[in-house]
Parts: sequence; C-alpha cells; structure tokens
Amino acid sequence: MKRVGKQTILFDKPVNIMATASIVGPKEADGPMAKYFDQCLDDEFWGEKSWEKAESKIIKETVNMAISKSGIPSEQIDFCFAGDLLNQCISSSFGLRELNIPFFGVFGACSTFVEGMCLGSVFIEGGGAQNVLCATSSHFCSAEKQFRFPLELGNQRPPSSQWTVTGSGATVLTKDGEGPYITCITPGKINDMGIKDANNMGAAMAPAALDTLIAHLVDTGRKPSYYDAIITGDLGYIGKDILIDLAQKRGYNIKSNYNDCGVMMFDKDAQDTHSGGSGCACIGTIFSGYFYRMLKEKKYKRILLIATGALMNSTSSQQGESIPGIAHAVAIEI
Amino acid sequence: MKRVGKQTILFDKPVNIMATASIVGPKEADGPMAKYFDQCLDDEFWGEKSWEKAESKIIKETVNMAISKSGIPSEQIDFCFAGDLLNQCISSSFGLRELNIPFFGVFGACSTFVEGMCLGSVFIEGGGAQNVLCATSSHFCSAEKQFRFPLELGNQRPPSSQWTVTGSGATVLTKDGEGPYITCITPGKINDMGIKDANNMGAAMAPAALDTLIAHLVDTGRKPSYYDAIITGDLGYIGKDILIDLAQKRGYNIKSNYNDCGVMMFDKDAQDTHSGGSGCACIGTIFSGYFYRMLKEKKYKRILLIATGALMNSTSSQQGESIPGIAHAVAIEI
Repeated sequence: MKRVGKQTILFDKPVNIMATASIVGPKEADGPMAKYFDQCLDDEFWGEKSWEKAESKIIKETVNMAISKSGIPSEQIDFCFAGDLLNQCISSSFGLRELNIPFFGVFGACSTFVEGMCLGSVFIEGGGAQNVLCATSSHFCSAEKQFRFPLELGNQRPPSSQWTVTGSGATVLTKDGEGPYITCITPGKINDMGIKDANNMGAAMAPAALDTLIAHLVDTGRKPSYYDAIITGDLGYIGKDILIDLAQKRGYNIKSNYNDCGVMMFDKDAQDTHSGGSGCACIGTIFSGYFYRMLKEKKYKRILLIATGALMNSTSSQQGESIPGIAHAVAIEI
Repeated sequence: MKRVGKQTILFDKPVNIMATASIVGPKEADGPMAKYFDQCLDDEFWGEKSWEKAESKIIKETVNMAISKSGIPSEQIDFCFAGDLLNQCISSSFGLRELNIPFFGVFGACSTFVEGMCLGSVFIEGGGAQNVLCATSSHFCSAEKQFRFPLELGNQRPPSSQWTVTGSGATVLTKDGEGPYITCITPGKINDMGIKDANNMGAAMAPAALDTLIAHLVDTGRKPSYYDAIITGDLGYIGKDILIDLAQKRGYNIKSNYNDCGVMMFDKDAQDTHSGGSGCACIGTIFSGYFYRMLKEKKYKRILLIATGALMNSTSSQQGESIPGIAHAVAIEI
C-alpha cells in the first residue's frame, strides 16, 4: 500500500469483500429496501428482555450469517473490528463475546462500519491478516433511550430528526477473491462547525462528509463522475441537501450520482421518519444488503462509501457542547 | 509483517516509539510514580467547568506535548488512534477535534492505549503511515459518575474496588528512529468468565490477561523470562494475584518479573485506594512516564505490555449481565 496525498491509502493489491450479511427490524422491513436484506424481524425485542440484549442478538446473528456466507471457517478469521452506538459499545462486546476471534473495538459513531473496513483492509494488505470481519449495529429503541428520551415519554420528534435504523451489517474481507474490492481508503478528520442541535445530525455531519469527500478526490485526482455512486451513511434529507450545496460551492457537482442511505432506507411520507434513517446500521445494512449485491451483479462498478458519525453524547449536549462530526471513506470497485 | 501462531503479528522492521507524554491529576501526584510524569495537576477541574471538559483538556494537552517532544510537525502525523472511558469516547473526540489529523476512534475500555499502539504500528509497518499518534485518558470523577455513583453521594467503596486514574498518556510512533521499538503485537479475544461485580474489575479482567499472555508466549515460542518485565494495565492487587495464580496453574511462573500499573500507581495504605489504580490512563501514563524512560535508559531492554479492559456499562450491570474482559499486548524492545 502507499499513501497518496494527505490522507488516502491506495492498495497495491485491492482487498476482497468476500461476503456481507444484514438483519433489520420491523420498521426497516416496511421500507423500500426490505427485499435486499437477509432477514427482517417481526419485533424489536426478538425474544429478548431488553432492547440492549436484542441489539446484541442482532449483531451476533448477523456476524454468524456473514461468516457462514463467506464459506471461511470462523477459526480462520484473524481479527474482528466492531463497534456500535451504545455506551461502551456493549452490543458489540456482548454480542460477539463468544466469537473467539481477536477483537478490536472501534468507535466512530455512525461511521463505525466504514472505519472497521478501513482498519481491516490495512491489516490484510499489510500482511497482518488473511481474513477479517467488520460489523456494526444500532437499534432505534436503545438509541433513543440513550441519546434523547425514553420512548415511554412519547416526546414529539422535530422535523429535522432522524430515525435510528434497527439492524446490523457485517462483512468478511479477505486477501484473495473475485471482488468487489476495496481499492483505497480515506479516513476522515474530526470536523466541528458549531451545530448544537442533537435533533439535527445531518447538519452536524455534512461538513465532515464534505471534508472527506474533497480529500479523497484531491488525493486520488478523481472527479465525482469517476464513481457510479457516491453514498453517504446517514445525513438524511437535510444533510444530503447541505452536502450537495457545500460541494457545489467548492466546485464539485455531485447531484447526479450521489445518494444517502438515510434517504434510501424509509418511505419518508408513509413511514413518518422525518429527515430519514440514521445509526451505525443504516449504511451497514444498506451496503451489505443492497450495494454489495449491485456490485456483484455489476450494476454498479465503482462506488465511494462515506460513512458519517456524530461524536457526541447526551452529557456533552447538556453541557452546551457542539457536535463534532467525522466521516470515513472507502472506494469499492469491481 | 507476518502472522505467527494464532493471534500474533511479528514486524519485519520494528516500529519506533519516538516520544511519549503524560499528565496526571492530584491524587496520582501524591503517589510513588509522581516524579516520572511530565505534568501533575493541582486540581481535578484544571480550570474547566466540568470533569468531562477537564478530561478533554488533559488529553488535548498531553497529545500536544507528545507531538512537541517527538519533534515531528503535527501535519506530518498521518493518523491518530484514540479513545477513552466516557460514553461515546467524548473526551477524545472533544479534546482532539482541533488536531486536524485523520482520526480513528477506538474503544477497548482500559485496554485502549495498547489497542491504539497495535493498530498504529500495523499502519506504519504496512506502509500506510510514516508517523501516528496514540492517546487515551481517564478521570476518576467522570468515571465514577458514569460507571458507579455520583461522587456527591459519598458511597462507600468496597475493598475490591479500584481508583480510576485521572490523567492521559500519549505516544508518537514512527517508521524510523532509535527505539525503543514495538517488535510484535498480540491482540486479544473477549473473555467472559461470569464475574458480575462492577466493583471487582481485577477478577473480571484477569482471565483475559491470562489468555493474551499465553497466546503471546505460545505464538512466539518465548518464555516469561524472555522479558525483563511483564506489565498489565489495571488488574490491581486482587487481579494481579489472580493472574499469577492462573498462570502458575497453566505452567507459567511470572512471579519474579510481573507487575501491574494499578499496583504501581498509588500507595495502597497511605492513599486509601483499596485494590489499586485503574482506567485507560493507568497504563497510559505509567508506560509513557516510567517504562518509556526505563527503556530509553536501558534499565529494561524487553517488556511485554498487556493492557486490560472491561467491556461493560452501567446498563448492562443493571440488567444482570456479567463483565466481558479483553487484553491487548505489545512487545517493546531496545
């Protein structure tokens, strides 16, 4: 691998994406992407006694499914990179504690899925691993309880709010295989433009997405049109519009080939999800369910996957802090 | 680099530890290690309005100090790997948001410092980076508030409890330099032996330390006596004794060259710290302050640094869950 430009790493031998898996909750099962997911759940608890335990079960089963689909025995998977939105990333550590694979906990908020892919692909291309697993999860009920208000309060959601996706996405990366391949990565910097509204995450994260997008294009010398699709994680309707505007002002027209997983996940009007989906599982499930299949079927040949995260907690908001954003990108080609 | 055994990566060209920095709070300043730290604070707030903001300031200043001591301009530091104990790792993301360096958030609870060193050294040896920064922090007051009870309640602490270290440790790793060097890494698996007492972290984490220690020794074919010192992060007095016993039962005698940073940090009797120090900053500051200096002065030539973490949160404890542990190891030689 080699560094190109300021923050991009280009792989000499692209890293293979061997398999993906996705499990989603009932609301996602009612949305337009439902048919692409491996499994849709009937209820948010999935037979568990708490939302947290349900989320752990979702990531556990998704990971088992990804390993099974990869055809690689789990003892040949060298490292696991996983994280989630819950305090101390407990859905990953509890869900994956029986996995018996060396474990790197990562936290990039909703950028965690792509952060894991960045780290895992560097381990493979560097020769430190043959096969790695990357996974993430989120859960509407556990996330609302933790970041905003307990659902039992029935608080009204402002129009700029987003709906945390219940689900999990997982992928197995390998040294060899038939693609699609991760060809380069552009890890992002923390960007804080002073947005303080925890119900407007799209606005808080859009500048980070812009920063990583431009860094990627400058570092690689590519134009936005190089990609069949540029995909952000969970900017939602508001953040998507902001990113298009900000990019336009910097001279990049991404209108025709850019979309956001938060916009894709739900039917805005029928499902009352306001500014769209969010959460680690938003890009995790839509990449694993939809885009991976489109790449395999060669309907897309080159995509740039930019996962966005908001690095705050409820205490920082109560203390009047703004919301730092981050975005990590991987280029995937077939 | 190459994989050896089940979970160890051996570097062809060992990664240089260019500089370290450490800042600690007032209680640590009263302990036996005080003279080795770069800066000792007079109070827990350091002029800030909250413990969380103080912790962010501590990691920020420690990182600036490490960069400054390394002599490398910050724009030549390719990536930063950092995390902490607070919900959503906010002390790292708020403390480092102005750093302008691509940022990987990591979460391994108190194993975070060595987890960052593992990831950073793979990036350097793989050719993805020339220079990286690894940092972590913890704060007694913010940690108690979050994981146990608000300090204002004045709860009694059981004898098995540990005292979270207030402070931050940071290190700059580089491709070239005069050492000490990270020669190999052994990332750990999640181990859960069913311990449920959040006031007995040493017992919860000791099996993970044992698992990683034995994996490292088996993978490398080394005996414990290969190292001048085997150092765990924060098992404390109770966990240290457990690890010695468990290792003995598996045929490894580590009594003569093993110590724990939680044991080293405080004067148990004079400082009323019960089972010893804990927290991300425990191994972060003692490695950065004490061991790095001992290696530079060649008083130690080979150490095995095993950072231990407990992957729980207060909700998981309230829901009756046990405490999964993890431990990551790096071998450092001069």
